[in-house]
Parts: sequence; C-alpha cells; structure tokens
Amino acid sequence: MPPFASSRNKSKVSLQRVNITSNAIQKTVRFSVINCSLKINHAQPALNDEIRVPSVIKEMENEEITSPSVAGRLVKGGPVFQQNVSVRSFEIDPEYKMSTKAIMNYLQEASLIYAKKLGLTIDTRFGITPGMRKMDLVWVFRGMHIEVDRYPCWGEVVQILHWTCASGRTGVRFDWTINDINTGETLVRASCLAVMMNKNTRKACKFPEEVKDEIKAYLREDVEPIVEAFKYSCPQIEAMDHIKTGLTPGRNDLDVNYHVNNAKYLDWILESTPDSIRDKHELWKMNFEYRKECLKDDVVQSLSRVVPSNEKNREIEVEHVLRLESGHQVLRARTVWRTNSHSCRGINSMKTIF
Amino acid sequence: MPPFASSRNKSKVSLQRVNITSNAIQKTVRFSVINCSLKINHAQPALNDEIRVPSVIKEMENEEITSPSVAGRLVKGGPVFQQNVSVRSFEIDPEYKMSTKAIMNYLQEASLIYAKKLGLTIDTRFGITPGMRKMDLVWVFRGMHIEVDRYPCWGEVVQILHWTCASGRTGVRFDWTINDINTGETLVRASCLAVMMNKNTRKACKFPEEVKDEIKAYLREDVEPIVEAFKYSCPQIEAMDHIKTGLTPGRNDLDVNYHVNNAKYLDWILESTPDSIRDKHELWKMNFEYRKECLKDDVVQSLSRVVPSNEKNREIEVEHVLRLESGHQVLRARTVWRTNSHSCRGINSMKTIF
Repeated sequence: MPPFASSRNKSKVSLQRVNITSNAIQKTVRFSVINCSLKINHAQPALNDEIRVPSVIKEMENEEITSPSVAGRLVKGGPVFQQNVSVRSFEIDPEYKMSTKAIMNYLQEASLIYAKKLGLTIDTRFGITPGMRKMDLVWVFRGMHIEVDRYPCWGEVVQILHWTCASGRTGVRFDWTINDINTGETLVRASCLAVMMNKNTRKACKFPEEVKDEIKAYLREDVEPIVEAFKYSCPQIEAMDHIKTGLTPGRNDLDVNYHVNNAKYLDWILESTPDSIRDKHELWKMNFEYRKECLKDDVVQSLSRVVPSNEKNREIEVEHVLRLESGHQVLRARTVWRTNSHSCRGINSMKTIF
Repeated sequence: MPPFASSRNKSKVSLQRVNITSNAIQKTVRFSVINCSLKINHAQPALNDEIRVPSVIKEMENEEITSPSVAGRLVKGGPVFQQNVSVRSFEIDPEYKMSTKAIMNYLQEASLIYAKKLGLTIDTRFGITPGMRKMDLVWVFRGMHIEVDRYPCWGEVVQILHWTCASGRTGVRFDWTINDINTGETLVRASCLAVMMNKNTRKACKFPEEVKDEIKAYLREDVEPIVEAFKYSCPQIEAMDHIKTGLTPGRNDLDVNYHVNNAKYLDWILESTPDSIRDKHELWKMNFEYRKECLKDDVVQSLSRVVPSNEKNREIEVEHVLRLESGHQVLRARTVWRTNSHSCRGINSMKTIF
C-alpha cells in the first residue's frame, strides 16, 4: 500500500503526483492524527486496556492462539484476523532480533490478507472492493505508529492479531498486536490511519457511502487505537544536521502499484540516523506521517536530527524528514530509541525456539 | 551466510578481506564448479530424475507434504528438511509473483534451520559446529545455481525441501526444491557449493576431519546435484556496456556477521540489467560465482552485458560482474531470461489460494 501525501494544514490536503510540479491545494478532508504544536507525550497503552482490544480476542482458546495458521485465518468468523509467522534469518539484525522493517512488512501483509479473506477484495488487487474499483479508489496510509516492547528472535513463532475500526467520516484505522505465542505477552503494538485516494487525480477523498456499505460490517466502533501517536513539535528542516542524499529505490522496493513500499522509508530514515545511535540502541517507538507518494525514478534525501534533551534518561529522540530533490516532503517521522534491551544471540533464548 | 572469494585460476584461491589491499595469492583448494572455457549448455534435469532426489522424498505421505510446519521439520528423522512457507505481499513483484530475491532468502533460511534442527549448531551461530568454532571456521557460499520453472504467487503456500551432500574433499553441496503443495510440481531447483573459511585469515581451507565426523551422518553421497551450473565463457569486462556505480548496502542488507547478504547481490546485478529485459522477461536460470566478501562500507559497481545470440529463440542471456571500486570482483554471474510466462494478477489464480 503506498503511503500518502498531505499538507500539515488541518483543513487542506495536497495530493499531487510526485512527477507533477503543480502546487495546487486541494480542498478535501481533515486529519488530526498528529498534533503538531504540543510537547512530547508518550502514550503508554496498558496491556490489559479494555477499550483497546476487541473482546473476541479475550475469548480465543489456547488452541486457536497456537495453531499454525501459516496463511492466516479469521477469528470467530471475522472481527479479528490471526496469522502466526516464524521470524526468518533474512529478517533479523546482527543481534538476531527481527528487524523493524520486517515487522512493518508483516503488519501490511496481515491487513491485505484480512481484506482478502473477508471477501472484500474483488480480485488480486490489494484491498480493493467492487465499489472502490468502480470509482478508481485505492487505500493509502497516512500515519503509522508503532511501539516495540520486545523484538522477536530468529526462529520464534509469533502471533499477529489485526482488526479495523471506523475513524471519523474519512478513514479506517488498522490496529495490530504481535504477541509471544507461549506467554501471550504483547511484543508490538501498531496503529495506522488509512484513507482513500482517487487513482487518477491522486487526491484523497471522502469515504463514499457505497464503499462504507461494503465494509461496515467489518469495521469496529467499540475500541480505541491500540497505540496512540506521541505528540511532538514540527521538525525543523534547517536544523537537521545528518543528511544522506541520492537515495533511490531498487526494483524490490516497489509494490504492485510501482510505488515505493512504505517499509522502505524506514531504511531511508536509518540512512541518516547517526551510527552512534544505531549501534547501541534499538528502535522503541516510531511515528510516521506519510506526505507524498514516492515512485521508482525518484531520488530521495534523508535528513535527521537528534532532539536535544535535558532529562538524564536513556531515551533518545530523533526527528526525520525524507524529501525529494525538488524539496517536496515524502515523510516526516519521529523515532524514540532505547539502550539495546536484549539480544537473541544467547544459547538459552534459542533453546526455547528450535 | 556470506558469499566468498576465489580466483578463476583452477588451482589457486584468492581470499583477502575486501578492506585489505594486498594481492597475495593463497595456495588453497581446487574448485571446478564452473568451467570457464566451454560453450553454453543448459542443464535440464528431469523432474523424476532418480539420481537427483533423495529416495526419502518419494516415501513422504501426502499428509506430511501438506502439513503446515511453519518452523520446518526433519523428514524421516533427518535426511531431508521440509518447510512450508506462504508467499508474502512484500516478497512479490508487480505481477504478484514471488521475487527471485525472496526465493534465495528462503533457500538460505532452510539450510540454517536444517543445521539447527539436526543439532549441528552449537548456539545461535549460523550452522557452526563445535569443531568449526574451535578452529574459527565459518561456511561460505562459492557458487549458486537456480532454475525457476514457475514463480509462486502471492498467498500461495509452497513446500521447500532441502538436503546436503558431500562434494569432494573440500565442500558440501546444498540442494533445494520448491514445490507446488497441491500438485507436487517442482517450481524451483537450486544447488549451491559451500566451503569452509577461516574467520581470521579469510582463507578457504580443507574440510577438517573433526568437522567431517560431526556432520558426515547428514551428508548424502547417493544423489547428484538437483540442478547443474550451465557453462559459459568468462565475462568480458571491457565489453560490458550497462554500468551502475555507487551501490552501497543498507543496514538491512547485512547478515549477522555484518557481511552483505548474498541475495542482495541479485538486487545489484539487476541494477545494471537493461529495463527492456526486466520489464518484459522473467529470470529463468541463474549462475552466481561468489568471489569476494562484501562488507558494509564497500561501494560496488554493477556491470552487465547482453550476450549476442544468433538463434531466434526467446531466451536472453546476460552476463554480470559486481566489483569494488578497487577493481576486485565480488561476483560473476550469468542469467537467462524468458518472456514473462505467467502473471498472478488474474482472478482465477487467486481463487485457488485464499
């Protein structure tokens, strides 16, 4: 699913194709995922938060949780999707921990298979309903928020749970947890706002009634986001002092629509994150605000800045911008890093897995 | 597993670290995977070739073939490893077909889990036996040969079978097939020679008796390679007319030893393969000859040349070299492309999968 473009202005959205230079501002929908003017305030959803987890999950039998379901399955007929996946050797970092990019890939995979299994998707197209096809609409991600409590290890089989909620009149919220299959412990929480875009005009649009009717039975309204965006001030481009230029997508970074896959953006923001942070810390929290599509011939600049902190804690915050050489911003992001909390290199941790 | 460096000279192997400029030739072992002087001769192993498939595979029950085994399992106690995997949305190309890179990743994954499940691996290290650890030895790939009859589609669950064979006094051969789980049809055949390298000297070495004793029970001697390298003449560097420079690995391209993953090399050779070939053709056969390790700070050049052909067939052959800016060659490869044989975009093909 391609990420998406919006202006920061609360009442307007700018949605041109990357290769069109027009700067016309489109009057479209309102988004308030990220409040750009408030101080940092990390949301810390409790594990057992009643308002954040569909009740059907609590009713799952142990057998259902640990079943292989390699291709994924609908829990209790549909309100939640479950998929158990094994962490692969090519999806880990040098500490044998699952990479954040791999986590993002699996989140998207779950949402695509869920739509397919619900019968919402008319053909192979990713999550496209008959109504959407008629109106030339596709889904695009606006904002993604991820918190990782513990990274799964190589060979570990984890359970992904996924559900969707209505989000105002304009969008759909995707929520996921990734859980330890033995203890039930939640390892990863993620929440994402997706909206509809017209394929031809590349503009966001309201949620058509026809499409709403197609999918409303599968949209929950009784749960809050499993994780909320932490709030932060706007990135100061001119203060960004870690810059990597000339980044280009490879063939394998493109999705079926020839857009750069949104998980690739993570690679790129890490390109300008100082080695001193990447070497001794791990990603804990991430906020991504997708602002513009990125296509196969685009050349991207990655800019980062470590946010100064007076507090003597071990967290490090970094703000990031990806932009095209034209100056158009593709992504704004904020990452929070903590000291490497664990490694999967040890013998003991592996014994329990293989 | 990092790929490896050798000279083309039949009796000598050159195995320096990439960041050492010394050009000393090491007297080590002999490899004859690829004969550099003969004409092209495509091997076409028959599907039912008795000499290429361990007999235990023919004895597998249908239930065993289709069992989920998401984390993989030993067939009949050990001579063959089986893993069933589902093709993910982030592992496909725009035709919804599994990417060749994803295929290469799964081959390596199978060999690592197989070693782990056999109890050969002492800790989390990839395939390292106690004897290898004592002598500071690691496995490295020398040559990889892959033939793809049909690319699996998004969502398709395929069966990977994997076994290992002794290969002369110096190496171990890894063989794999990827099969349609419903029809038993073999979709992919791959064979790879791996040898041992001393971690400190970066030199290849003979197979120590102590290590041979550790693993000999699991090395078959009764089967031929499932696919053989097709033969071709040495690439002519000066004739290579498609060049891409400045290629650098990203963080997610490194394995646990901080080497560039061998599947990344495929990305790089595609970078200099003409669009006209990549857009209308698919990779059919691949020969990779790994010649030198590639590390995280290396800058790589990708060179390709379409091999002229007088025959009026639809196959296209391309020769490739990856080299460092110093001129040292990292990889030589030959690829054979055919007209796109199928797409997974259609409705019908998806119905059978989800």
